[in-house]
Amino acid sequence: MNDQLERLNRLPLRSNLRGLTPYGAPQLDVPILLNVNENSHGVPADVRAAITEAVAEAATSLNRYPDREFTDLRRALAEYLGHGLDESNLWAANGSNEVLQQILQAFGGPGRTALGFPPTYSMYPLLASGTDTEYIKGERAADYGLSAESAARQVKELRPNIVFLCSPNNPTGTGLGLDVVEAVYEAGAESQTIVIVDEAYHEFAHDGTPSALTLLPGRERLIVSRTMSKAFALAGARLGYMAAAPEVTDALRLVRLPYHLSAVTQATALAALQHREALMADVEDIKKQRDRIVTELTRMGLKPAASDSNFVFFGGLENPREVWKELLDAGVLIRDVGIPGHLRVTAGTETETTAFLTALESILASQAALPA
Amino acid sequence: MNDQLERLNRLPLRSNLRGLTPYGAPQLDVPILLNVNENSHGVPADVRAAITEAVAEAATSLNRYPDREFTDLRRALAEYLGHGLDESNLWAANGSNEVLQQILQAFGGPGRTALGFPPTYSMYPLLASGTDTEYIKGERAADYGLSAESAARQVKELRPNIVFLCSPNNPTGTGLGLDVVEAVYEAGAESQTIVIVDEAYHEFAHDGTPSALTLLPGRERLIVSRTMSKAFALAGARLGYMAAAPEVTDALRLVRLPYHLSAVTQATALAALQHREALMADVEDIKKQRDRIVTELTRMGLKPAASDSNFVFFGGLENPREVWKELLDAGVLIRDVGIPGHLRVTAGTETETTAFLTALESILASQAALPA
Repeated sequence: MNDQLERLNRLPLRSNLRGLTPYGAPQLDVPILLNVNENSHGVPADVRAAITEAVAEAATSLNRYPDREFTDLRRALAEYLGHGLDESNLWAANGSNEVLQQILQAFGGPGRTALGFPPTYSMYPLLASGTDTEYIKGERAADYGLSAESAARQVKELRPNIVFLCSPNNPTGTGLGLDVVEAVYEAGAESQTIVIVDEAYHEFAHDGTPSALTLLPGRERLIVSRTMSKAFALAGARLGYMAAAPEVTDALRLVRLPYHLSAVTQATALAALQHREALMADVEDIKKQRDRIVTELTRMGLKPAASDSNFVFFGGLENPREVWKELLDAGVLIRDVGIPGHLRVTAGTETETTAFLTALESILASQAALPA
Repeated sequence: MNDQLERLNRLPLRSNLRGLTPYGAPQLDVPILLNVNENSHGVPADVRAAITEAVAEAATSLNRYPDREFTDLRRALAEYLGHGLDESNLWAANGSNEVLQQILQAFGGPGRTALGFPPTYSMYPLLASGTDTEYIKGERAADYGLSAESAARQVKELRPNIVFLCSPNNPTGTGLGLDVVEAVYEAGAESQTIVIVDEAYHEFAHDGTPSALTLLPGRERLIVSRTMSKAFALAGARLGYMAAAPEVTDALRLVRLPYHLSAVTQATALAALQHREALMADVEDIKKQRDRIVTELTRMGLKPAASDSNFVFFGGLENPREVWKELLDAGVLIRDVGIPGHLRVTAGTETETTAFLTALESILASQAALPA
């Protein structure tokens, strides 16, 4: 590997890539995977059948380029989101990472900046770097909260071209009030800041939590991004999307690769949208397990953050790395997001959640029993 | 539309996108489509069945992120290519456009240049622009040929970071001798130029035409790109790939989006590779029709270029735009690539090819009958 790394660095790589190591951590073969916020519920049988049928149909014209405009899919996504949106407001790509990359290609780039508020989704700085956009790290409160006043002040001071607001935020799981989105949008009026609200986990929010979609009318610099990877249990299908003013979708048409969304991807996503009842029932179950984790961790003396997502970020651990390792030994893989005293766990099925909670309680008990 | 364009230009777009119009030419609904070099033969029934079965299997774990390394697919692609390649030499993405974009992200970018030799694949300048790489137009001979001496001299003079050699070339259809590739590689030694040989149409080359794959050993700056859109009749599935030294695949790992290749795409491509006999039989038929077009156009007094691809570029037309339009009226859509006196036609099935040739001959005859 060192030899290969040496050969890599002999290639005429761009300077900002020199010395980097290819991202390739092997996915661990563990019975219970609660580390990457996937939907532990498999795709329901009727949805699988619909996907298979749709792909079989798509295969009959797979020799032809796909619908470059994926109009049927955009219409179905608009219908799913509601809020008076139609296909002119919708755009999709291979995962929301690609949607965000296209936004950066359209509105970021050399000499431009993008502001994020860490700890937040770890891809934002990588996507910025990949499009030669300067990434600026904004500040949060000590409890990782972000107030409208603080966010707006930072936008006014830093005048970024793009700002990322992740709600519910990854890795903390906490939602952002719409007052924050409104204040940031307003603060970015002079700098013409594009405001991205990343709602990848919105479907898991507590009932009655409003979406930033409600703010779209009259705000042509506002973009709400979503994904089918989480609530729709389609992480493997790679379908991210966004809603915004029609001119924003036109801007993305200027930078997308032609035919970026395959006919198979379009067919798969469309079938899942058309058969979403069973999927939405699983979402309700996941929300229950998420709330159960928060309750149980609190009972164990830990400090879980309020979560509107399908995962729980929790603090109060003296040695998170050791707890992570012992959970792995017990067959439960969760995520060490590199924040002192904290870990993050995905809400799985009831069985998986029970296995996690039981293993964690036992690990904490055995640690407490150790001589100080 | 003008109103929407005005709204688009009020957005804080990057300066190099200002004034551009979204690419959105509607695909025309015409009986015979010979305009975008698709494979007119549909995906054979046994391949469709294999794809459907593979996707049904993939759907059982679609809630999980796909294999980020798509190792099975890379192995199958290496086995297909032969030449002693293995999975460490292979890389794939959503269409060869995305492969090329990743190469530009790794080795191009601000302050760097990419050299192409127009007329050639029209996406090269767009991909360069999308990654802020300066695109340089090299020169060809009057007959659109490119000699080893001329190409090498231009590389030595221009010292590009990347050079695109399209072979067989689109839109001319003509292959490039391996002496050109060798000379360009050698000429780029001092400037550490990455040499991309785009062999999207290689499977259609006349028997015995060597691939640039034979040149890979010992040339770590050489990349050979391929696609499943043409010979494999999978334009709708979006699977492009490349073969190169293992350190080049590592370089692309530094810039690719995580999980860029969906589980559904991986399953589709793998199934087609495993059932390629019928596909390869269709390639032989397409080659026959391609040669037939060249023979017939010559008989009609036109000047078709020698073609090693699934299309024929032909000159000798006084009014190509009018011929194009009359063919369209006759239900045959071919391509006006904007080169004076020329048009380009894809070799279709025997029936489609006959329809094209019959319509064209009739159009030429009626034009000749017109009073001068």
